[in-house]
Amino acid sequence: MTEKFTLGDKLESLAVNMEDSYYAFDRIKHISSRSLPSRDEIHDITKQLFGLIYPGFFGDQNVTHDNCGAFVRETLESVGSRLYHIIYQCLSYKERSDRHRHMASDTVVAFLGELPKVREVLASDVLAGYRGDPASQGTDEVVFSYPATIAVGTYRLAHELRKFGVPLMPRIMTEHAHNLTGVDISPGAHIGRGFFIDHGTGVVVGETAIIGDNCKLYQGVTLGAISFPHDEEGQIIRGHKRHPTLGDEVVVYSNATVLGNVTIGKGSTIGGGVFLTRSVPPGCTVSAKQAELRYRNRCDFLGRGHVTEFDI
Amino acid sequence: MTEKFTLGDKLESLAVNMEDSYYAFDRIKHISSRSLPSRDEIHDITKQLFGLIYPGFFGDQNVTHDNCGAFVRETLESVGSRLYHIIYQCLSYKERSDRHRHMASDTVVAFLGELPKVREVLASDVLAGYRGDPASQGTDEVVFSYPATIAVGTYRLAHELRKFGVPLMPRIMTEHAHNLTGVDISPGAHIGRGFFIDHGTGVVVGETAIIGDNCKLYQGVTLGAISFPHDEEGQIIRGHKRHPTLGDEVVVYSNATVLGNVTIGKGSTIGGGVFLTRSVPPGCTVSAKQAELRYRNRCDFLGRGHVTEFDI
Amino acid sequence: MTEKFTLGDKLESLAVNMEDSYYAFDRIKHISSRSLPSRDEIHDITKQLFGLIYPGFFGDQNVTHDNCGAFVRETLESVGSRLYHIIYQCLSYKERSDRHRHMASDTVVAFLGELPKVREVLASDVLAGYRGDPASQGTDEVVFSYPATIAVGTYRLAHELRKFGVPLMPRIMTEHAHNLTGVDISPGAHIGRGFFIDHGTGVVVGETAIIGDNCKLYQGVTLGAISFPHDEEGQIIRGHKRHPTLGDEVVVYSNATVLGNVTIGKGSTIGGGVFLTRSVPPGCTVSAKQAELRYRNRCDFLGRGHVTEFDI
Repeated sequence: MTEKFTLGDKLESLAVNMEDSYYAFDRIKHISSRSLPSRDEIHDITKQLFGLIYPGFFGDQNVTHDNCGAFVRETLESVGSRLYHIIYQCLSYKERSDRHRHMASDTVVAFLGELPKVREVLASDVLAGYRGDPASQGTDEVVFSYPATIAVGTYRLAHELRKFGVPLMPRIMTEHAHNLTGVDISPGAHIGRGFFIDHGTGVVVGETAIIGDNCKLYQGVTLGAISFPHDEEGQIIRGHKRHPTLGDEVVVYSNATVLGNVTIGKGSTIGGGVFLTRSVPPGCTVSAKQAELRYRNRCDFLGRGHVTEFDI
Repeated sequence: MTEKFTLGDKLESLAVNMEDSYYAFDRIKHISSRSLPSRDEIHDITKQLFGLIYPGFFGDQNVTHDNCGAFVRETLESVGSRLYHIIYQCLSYKERSDRHRHMASDTVVAFLGELPKVREVLASDVLAGYRGDPASQGTDEVVFSYPATIAVGTYRLAHELRKFGVPLMPRIMTEHAHNLTGVDISPGAHIGRGFFIDHGTGVVVGETAIIGDNCKLYQGVTLGAISFPHDEEGQIIRGHKRHPTLGDEVVVYSNATVLGNVTIGKGSTIGGGVFLTRSVPPGCTVSAKQAELRYRNRCDFLGRGHVTEFDI
Repeated sequence: MTEKFTLGDKLESLAVNMEDSYYAFDRIKHISSRSLPSRDEIHDITKQLFGLIYPGFFGDQNVTHDNCGAFVRETLESVGSRLYHIIYQCLSYKERSDRHRHMASDTVVAFLGELPKVREVLASDVLAGYRGDPASQGTDEVVFSYPATIAVGTYRLAHELRKFGVPLMPRIMTEHAHNLTGVDISPGAHIGRGFFIDHGTGVVVGETAIIGDNCKLYQGVTLGAISFPHDEEGQIIRGHKRHPTLGDEVVVYSNATVLGNVTIGKGSTIGGGVFLTRSVPPGCTVSAKQAELRYRNRCDFLGRGHVTEFDI
């Protein structure tokens, strides 16, 4: 199929209409000499950081005792430089300031300095994954293939960057993990150590959620907001605490929804499918009363005595 | 690990069995001189279209006031040519016809001519995203990192192509967005302006769904079909209206399910987790009666007076 | 942005702290002369296998009657060699043994020999997809763009590898499909022919689930475990049957949850949103009693006679 196609004399009017549209609807264009940070670069940096915090599991997988020292130093210099440039861009795409160079530089050094503490917490997360899933064949498998590793690891890195006031980048990182895993954790959430999410698809953890140590969530769990207060001009008020707080050792089973600024006490368990908008004291198990099920037996010879027959 | 592995004398029988299988189960092969369109090419074209409709946000991010005119003209020619070839392939992979060349050519010009209108609607979607989410830090962040931008933007482009009768490609586009975001919007659905999906994972919008202006969906919402009529030979009847219609300004909260050809009236709100198979008049709020929850307090010293104690 | 950034005299202390962290929290490092198998290589091999079992649809799409014989032989040799090396790595990353070379070699030949049988089952899956979805425009579209093709196809390949005792790789394959589609099928599950999953996001099929022939699942369905017995030391007991068994021709509608080692009899249907922890005889339809809905009409002039007015 080598024939050529050209828009010919249609090109000019199509182009003019498109340019007009850029100026008429300009919220969704960014035409500027200060370009936005590259999403692809942010994803690549995240990958390189995973290589640094999980050496041998992610990124360059040939890390040996002989080359480890060189690997760490080269990776730190390389990812440090890339972080500097992208953080500077995140800070300055709207307006440039010399202040931004200093902020970027300070943030890189401080952020890299936090990574050993992040690793300590991630090690507790992986152990929680192994202990919490009977299908797991070892911690290597958890690190190497579980979606929680991507989702929770990316959240922990993004959360550090957000603490340092970096705009745009934390959310781009967690949304990439959301794309990959179906787990949507806001970089603003606070999550303790030993955290595990099994299966994970559909999990939402909102911006002001607080989760204690050694908690476990299953697929489809929402820790969300129930309503948004508005200011006098009808605009949503941003930033107030509107998501749940979970104490230590709380387990929330699949597809349960907990909404609003409520507290689930230490050691409590929320059953599958529960829809909850109230606080729960420590040490409780909350389960939905089994919905009444209707059985219709379509085969006369089956299930006598076992099923009640209703029409639906 | 440089040792060689070869199938040796096993190769021939493995190959013959595989070839036999190709002919025995031939629905899942496409061995033909008319090759199928490339999925990767369709994904790349979609990316290039995103660069054109969100300049500076997607694709080449270095669009400035100086190079914008050249950027638009070069992108239109480039994506126009790629669209022509892929649309021709979609039309002709089963049987070739000269008619297909004209159809492809006409479709490209008409489709590109629709893009300014598509941009106008997308601008309203982005604003709805910013206004509807207290965690959002600006419309830039919505465009740049929200899954709704990918899911709804891809749907709007695919919907245009479907209107022009292009086979295969629209669904490949929306399924790619589904892969990325967990949001599954059929290219056949009709969706008004100012549309926002928050979080999004698990959302399903069926082929014959109709959604008015300024509607909002949360994660896990299904607008689905309840049953499929069959013809006299037991085959499913395709194409009839079997999904819901939402009026303007309808909000459907997380994990709610609305099934069948029902109508949700203007301004109505469907609460989280509601399972609905009936129509709702305008201006209503529908919520599930809170399921009765059972609390079992595992710690004697806790929660006296706060929890009712049941065994589960 | 060409200015250079360097960590300068901060590098050494950052590097030393990171290295200390590697040894302090060593479950999440793999520093060894025996590197782990590459995830990217496993994903690429899976893609190549898809090209082999769905010729013309995946991978090299220019398979014609003239080049088909060469295509099959070259692909078998190429994928055979890659499989040999990666399976050897999966077997030997913890400890090397000459035995592993023989196991890898035998596994490759046996696995490739199973592919015609796998194709037969996949052909039945695709037909089930076409027959089960009124929005489908043909089996080509099902193969080419439906998430079930990726999710179920990858599961069937991974399940074969698991049967041959290959560690790590099966789970990496199904987790990649999970990333792409939101469908999480354990490689350990047993699933009969003619299997279809529509939309799919959020589906979880657990390790010891058994699914008969001609079953259909919708988005958000969990076939999960209800509790994990622990041994005397408080460790989870792994491997026992803890997930449901579905007879032939069972349909489970969207967001239903079936938990525990229960049996759903042949031909039974589980309705949308049902939460089930008991067995169901054959031929039954199980649906949740419609939750009582509360309607609050916010507009006086609307819906008189149509809605009951409650405050929520």
